[in-house]
Amino acid sequence: MTPRPDVSAERKDQILNTAEDVFAERGFDEARMDDIAERSGLSKGAIYWYFKKKDDIIAALLDRVFRRNIESMRAEAARAGSVLDRLAAMGEQTSRDYESMSRLMPIALEFYAVALRQRKVRKHLATMYDEILAIIVPLIEEGIRNGELDDGVDPRQAATLLLGIYEGLGLVWAISPKTVDWKTLGPQAAQMLCDGLKRRGQGKKK
Amino acid sequence: MTPRPDVSAERKDQILNTAEDVFAERGFDEARMDDIAERSGLSKGAIYWYFKKKDDIIAALLDRVFRRNIESMRAEAARAGSVLDRLAAMGEQTSRDYESMSRLMPIALEFYAVALRQRKVRKHLATMYDEILAIIVPLIEEGIRNGELDDGVDPRQAATLLLGIYEGLGLVWAISPKTVDWKTLGPQAAQMLCDGLKRRGQGKKK
Repeated sequence: MTPRPDVSAERKDQILNTAEDVFAERGFDEARMDDIAERSGLSKGAIYWYFKKKDDIIAALLDRVFRRNIESMRAEAARAGSVLDRLAAMGEQTSRDYESMSRLMPIALEFYAVALRQRKVRKHLATMYDEILAIIVPLIEEGIRNGELDDGVDPRQAATLLLGIYEGLGLVWAISPKTVDWKTLGPQAAQMLCDGLKRRGQGKKK
Repeated sequence: MTPRPDVSAERKDQILNTAEDVFAERGFDEARMDDIAERSGLSKGAIYWYFKKKDDIIAALLDRVFRRNIESMRAEAARAGSVLDRLAAMGEQTSRDYESMSRLMPIALEFYAVALRQRKVRKHLATMYDEILAIIVPLIEEGIRNGELDDGVDPRQAATLLLGIYEGLGLVWAISPKTVDWKTLGPQAAQMLCDGLKRRGQGKKK
């Protein structure tokens, strides 16, 4: 965080928006840094000031997608209401976040592929996973304390499952778009997991 | 299927086993086709007869991993016992399949990244997803018919969720190995999903 905002955040966003357009239209391999510069209305020098190469733009786009999702999850987690409702809302929000990216879907795998080959980006992804878990774990703990969730649930494992479901549905969706219909599957995923976590009538067997 | 087995399946397996060793030791980028030829004890000509390039080996390794998992899921699905038990067993089997590949884990993402950039491999992955769904869907339908599972469950969506969970946990595991402990998380994933699918006491609200 800089003491006062300068234009660089705005400029970066402007470049990333343009990059999304160019990638979506031309595909990842065909898109050139020069295309992005031209379309953005900024000078080439300005583009290269912020991003040295196409891979850096990919990494920044991935970061932006995760940041948005983390912010929206955090907002859902902080709402009033039962833990189960908030978990379901977080799942639904995540589905909507995915859906809003459907324009990028044909190149989503390219994004991941490029990102995953860079150790630095991979580590960064791991810390974003940690951030997501840091939102979900306390929520599940709260649910166990207030009796909504089964006390046999391990908060960290359950949170990892939730994360895994959405990452996995995203992967399956990218590979086989017809298989995943976010509108119905997103909310159902959240609901089914909540049902699995829910406190059973008279305590738990075993 | 050929009328009678020739040696090519065996040769291919031999090459793939060697390739796993070489990839695991040297990393994906450093491994050379020549290293694989030398180590396998086969002639270079033999290697290139079966696989034109490193990417073809990657695609074949990915195929082999999925084939094995599909076979073991099919075996679990065909067992006697309740649908819930069989679903749980399939989840546990999948976790064991993943664990047995842990040697390949550091390069698993490279595998996926290479595979996903090839449209042909991506389509092949999509058909393997279809095969997995074709095993799980009838099992869930059976569970709904015999009253084990809630009749509000959509078999295809539930099956897609199961697939998504395991693909997703694999992805999270590859990016952040410390986050996923297969020994505990694999069985718990299956259990939690089964709890979510299970028939509720006196029918379902809504």
